[in-house]
Amino acid sequence: MSEKEFNSILIIGLGLIGSSLARALKEYELADNICGLDNNQKNIEKCEELGFLTKGFDNLKSFSNQFDLVIICSPLSTYKNIFSDLNKFISKQTLITDVGSTKMSVIKDFKDTVTNKYIKFIPGHPIAGLEKSGPDYGFAKLFENRFCILTPMDNDIESIKKITKFWNLIGMQVELMDSEHHDRVLAMTSHIPQLIAYSIVATATELETHLKDEVIKYSAAGFRDFTRLAGSDPIMWRDVYSKNKEAVLEMLGRFTEDLSTLQKAIRNDDLTFLESTFRTTREVRKTIEKLGQAGTFDPTESKIIK
Amino acid sequence: MSEKEFNSILIIGLGLIGSSLARALKEYELADNICGLDNNQKNIEKCEELGFLTKGFDNLKSFSNQFDLVIICSPLSTYKNIFSDLNKFISKQTLITDVGSTKMSVIKDFKDTVTNKYIKFIPGHPIAGLEKSGPDYGFAKLFENRFCILTPMDNDIESIKKITKFWNLIGMQVELMDSEHHDRVLAMTSHIPQLIAYSIVATATELETHLKDEVIKYSAAGFRDFTRLAGSDPIMWRDVYSKNKEAVLEMLGRFTEDLSTLQKAIRNDDLTFLESTFRTTREVRKTIEKLGQAGTFDPTESKIIK
Repeated sequence: MSEKEFNSILIIGLGLIGSSLARALKEYELADNICGLDNNQKNIEKCEELGFLTKGFDNLKSFSNQFDLVIICSPLSTYKNIFSDLNKFISKQTLITDVGSTKMSVIKDFKDTVTNKYIKFIPGHPIAGLEKSGPDYGFAKLFENRFCILTPMDNDIESIKKITKFWNLIGMQVELMDSEHHDRVLAMTSHIPQLIAYSIVATATELETHLKDEVIKYSAAGFRDFTRLAGSDPIMWRDVYSKNKEAVLEMLGRFTEDLSTLQKAIRNDDLTFLESTFRTTREVRKTIEKLGQAGTFDPTESKIIK
Repeated sequence: MSEKEFNSILIIGLGLIGSSLARALKEYELADNICGLDNNQKNIEKCEELGFLTKGFDNLKSFSNQFDLVIICSPLSTYKNIFSDLNKFISKQTLITDVGSTKMSVIKDFKDTVTNKYIKFIPGHPIAGLEKSGPDYGFAKLFENRFCILTPMDNDIESIKKITKFWNLIGMQVELMDSEHHDRVLAMTSHIPQLIAYSIVATATELETHLKDEVIKYSAAGFRDFTRLAGSDPIMWRDVYSKNKEAVLEMLGRFTEDLSTLQKAIRNDDLTFLESTFRTTREVRKTIEKLGQAGTFDPTESKIIK
């Protein structure tokens, strides 16, 4: 008899997160079979080549076996079809979770689509990522010391416990949250910073060619921090803004108010206001460092400019 | 006879940049005497303790010797007094340069203050830094593979060559630029990203306590990238906005226009526009990585959460 947590796990979407999960499952030996589903054959081949996938297909129907656990790791716009396929395919008790950045839309898609009584769904969101996409960049330790938020639809304690244990085993700390609240918190911690990063890089691309080239050349001055985020997957983020529209527009409103206040202070030479604002924000940074959620930034390069 | 480039160098302001410079001078053996001036006695003691300062005082008059090279590394609001003190103090041919983030204001302060014919001033700006301040965080390699922009006021080729060689020796690539152009480029690559980072962190601090705590807790989702910049020295940045007001307000205007366009696209569900914008910005990131100006971000923590 296997000692592993799960007999068979299906990961849908073998991008950065999905492939990192597969690596972690393999490394920590959490499942006998790690299966992958991706509509891009290249991603499957890459994962098979890297040796952390038992089996991969580009169509759910190609699998002859059932699964204990299914983890959806694909862009939010694909959920409805995926739920619909799973609704038809699943014929034994199966736990489903996901890694999507919005939770209200995911729950709505699920409720609109799934009628299959074998399916238990615990929506989830591991707060971990990188600006890189695709299986080449995945790594098992991506999830370590990060939080995973679950937004269960009901009080199915047993399923919540299983999913909690799953994320714990790959290094995450699990928190429960209401889906609406999740979407507001993430609008502020993730969707707005990302949008602003996209926006400022877009501003730079619209500058006169000469100025634009120089902005890129001298980006080490601060701009590069934004370009890192702005290098993220376009489809994934397009979907986030479409699915979390309300919370994003609300937080964006708050942000532009505050930016206008700073703009006015600059215009009016209100140095006292500027300095006191900058002191407050510095404290926030210190708190994040203390909490061990700051990541590590190395201002040097690994390679020499040629 | 000494083989070193300079007999005696004075660094004014022993913060992150000044102390890193002192470390680099010591490590690469570029001067016989590395002197430091700082109005904070603690910074001087720290640098002496770390062993890369020959002599340090909190008052220029305390030095009995003259210098070959003076490098100003203090906040922009201090320049006028520093130029005035140097104007009185200097009694032999001396080269002065600086590391200030704006160049038009620095040149104006110089021209308004200095009449001493022994002084030759080449304004400079090494594009290197960290969000940390103070001598504890300085390191010699901070300047390696980065650009240093010089904005000479006239065609004093000999002095430009000397200063260029100086920055080259500590690992920088030197470029010449008109001071007005410098201030516009830096507004976009540095001052606006920094202001936006301050602004978004300020927005977060004004949220309801409960939501604010969660934004900090889940900051690994993107927000933390902004808090890194927003942890920078408040005085230094207050001065930058005061001294580069015009260019900052111009670039800020462009940024808010672009942000409004994205906001409208989200409101109108214009997914095609969002996706194509996000694809363009991704290309900018790739260019910066190719140029070797991206830095290295490690999403893991060096320490474990307690």
